[in-house]
Amino acid sequence: MKVVFIGAGNVASHLSVALSQKGFDVVQVFSRTEFSAKSLAEKVEANYTTDIVQLDRSADIYIYSVSDRVLPELVPLVNAPDALHLHTSGSLSMDVFKGYAVHYGVFYPLQTFSKNRAVDFSSIPLFLEGNNQLTENRIKDIALKLSDSIYFADSEKRRKLHLSAVFACNFVNHMYELGAELVADTGFPLEVLFPLIEETAWKIKELSPYDAQTGPAVRNDRNVIDRHLAMLEHKRKLAAMYELICGDIYAVHKK
Amino acid sequence: MKVVFIGAGNVASHLSVALSQKGFDVVQVFSRTEFSAKSLAEKVEANYTTDIVQLDRSADIYIYSVSDRVLPELVPLVNAPDALHLHTSGSLSMDVFKGYAVHYGVFYPLQTFSKNRAVDFSSIPLFLEGNNQLTENRIKDIALKLSDSIYFADSEKRRKLHLSAVFACNFVNHMYELGAELVADTGFPLEVLFPLIEETAWKIKELSPYDAQTGPAVRNDRNVIDRHLAMLEHKRKLAAMYELICGDIYAVHKK
Repeated sequence: MKVVFIGAGNVASHLSVALSQKGFDVVQVFSRTEFSAKSLAEKVEANYTTDIVQLDRSADIYIYSVSDRVLPELVPLVNAPDALHLHTSGSLSMDVFKGYAVHYGVFYPLQTFSKNRAVDFSSIPLFLEGNNQLTENRIKDIALKLSDSIYFADSEKRRKLHLSAVFACNFVNHMYELGAELVADTGFPLEVLFPLIEETAWKIKELSPYDAQTGPAVRNDRNVIDRHLAMLEHKRKLAAMYELICGDIYAVHKK
Repeated sequence: MKVVFIGAGNVASHLSVALSQKGFDVVQVFSRTEFSAKSLAEKVEANYTTDIVQLDRSADIYIYSVSDRVLPELVPLVNAPDALHLHTSGSLSMDVFKGYAVHYGVFYPLQTFSKNRAVDFSSIPLFLEGNNQLTENRIKDIALKLSDSIYFADSEKRRKLHLSAVFACNFVNHMYELGAELVADTGFPLEVLFPLIEETAWKIKELSPYDAQTGPAVRNDRNVIDRHLAMLEHKRKLAAMYELICGDIYAVHKK
C-alpha cells in the first residue's frame, strides 16, 4: 500500500516511520518546509516535494498531519479522489474531505510526539472515524497493524478527547515547566522533582485523580496558599493562575 | 532510638512505617483524631494518645507531621526540651521550635503520600535543615537510613521546593482530574489517557519541559484554542483557567 504524507511535523514523522516499519510503502512526503520534508523523506526512504502540484497522485492512502488552519486549504489541491484520505487532527471534523474524496476519515493517535524521542505505537490509543462502514473497516485494518488499542469516535467525542489531552499532557507539561523554574531558583537539579512526578503519574493507575489529590489546595489551607500567592506575585500572571487552579481543586473536592 | 509521632496523616503514616522498618522504635502516635492515631499506632506497634498531656516525654525524637496551622500551637505543649524535634512541612520555618528545644530541624520529603499506596523511601529526595552542625549531622544520619537522596535546604529554598511540588504534583494531578472528567463525558475508559500521561512524565527525563511542550498553546493556534474555550464555557471557571495556562505557555515559548 502506497502512502503519501501531507505534512512533516512530529505526528507525521512518528506515524510515517511506524507505518514504514509495518510494511507500508511511504512513497512521498509533502511539506512547504523543505528541510522538514527532506529530513522525513530520508528517514522513510521516500521522495519529497514542497510543491503541491508535484504531489504523487498514484498512492492508495493520503495522510494529512498539518495544522487545523492549513488542512482545509490543502485538501482541494491534493486531487486524488479514489484514494483513502485520513487526517490525524484531534479537533477537525472528518467532513473537511467531503466533496473531494469518496473514502475518507480520521486517524487520531492520543499521544504526544516530540522530535528525537522514539515512541512505541503498539500501546497508543488510536481513535478512528470513517465516512462509511467499508472505509471504517479499511482504517481499522491499518490501525490494527500499529496498535492494540483501537476505538471508533465521532468528531464530537474526538474533540473532547483532544481537549482532555491538552489538560493531561500540554498543561501537565507546563506545570512541570513552572515547577522546574522554581527548582532552578533553588540551585538544586531538576532531578529532585522526578520521583514526585513519577509517583503522581503512576498513582492514578491505582487511585482516581480525585482520590489521589493531596496538598494545600484540597485542604483549602489558606496559610500556605497565601504564602504561595505572595511568592508568585511578580511572576507573569502566575498568581492568578495559581488561585484559579486552587479554587477549582477545592470546588471539586468540597462537593 | 525512640520516636514519637505528632500527627497521623499521610506523611506521618508513611514516614513512621519507613522508620520502623529501619529499626527505629516508634513508641507513640499522637493525633486528635482517635481513629487515625489508633490505625497508625497499630501499624507500627506503638501506643497512641489523643491527649497531648499523655504524650510520652522520654523519646529521643519527636516528628511533627501536622498542618502548618496546628504545628505552632502544638510545639509549646510537647515539653521534651532535650530531644530532637523535627517537622516535615515544606513551608514552615524551622524557627517554630525556637525556645522550646535545643536540637531541632526539618525533615521534608519531596513526595506525595496517599493512603493505601506504598512508596519506596529510598528514592525520595529528603531536604534537611538543622539548627546547628551537630543537629544537622544527627538529622543526616537518620535520613541516610531511609534514602540515597539527601540535601540540605534552608527555609527559603524549601518553600520554593514546596511550591514547585504544588505545580508538579497537586496541579498536575488536577489536570489529570480535568482530563478524566472530559474522558468520562465520551464514555471511553480513563485508561485511554494512561499512555499519554506516562509519556508526558517520562519525556521530561530526556527533554526539558520546555523542549517537550506540544499542542495548540505553544503554537498559539487560535482556531483550536477558541473551540476549546467554547467547550469549557459553562464549566465552573475552567475557560478562564484554560486561557491563563495557554497564555503562559505561549509567553514562555515566544521569548
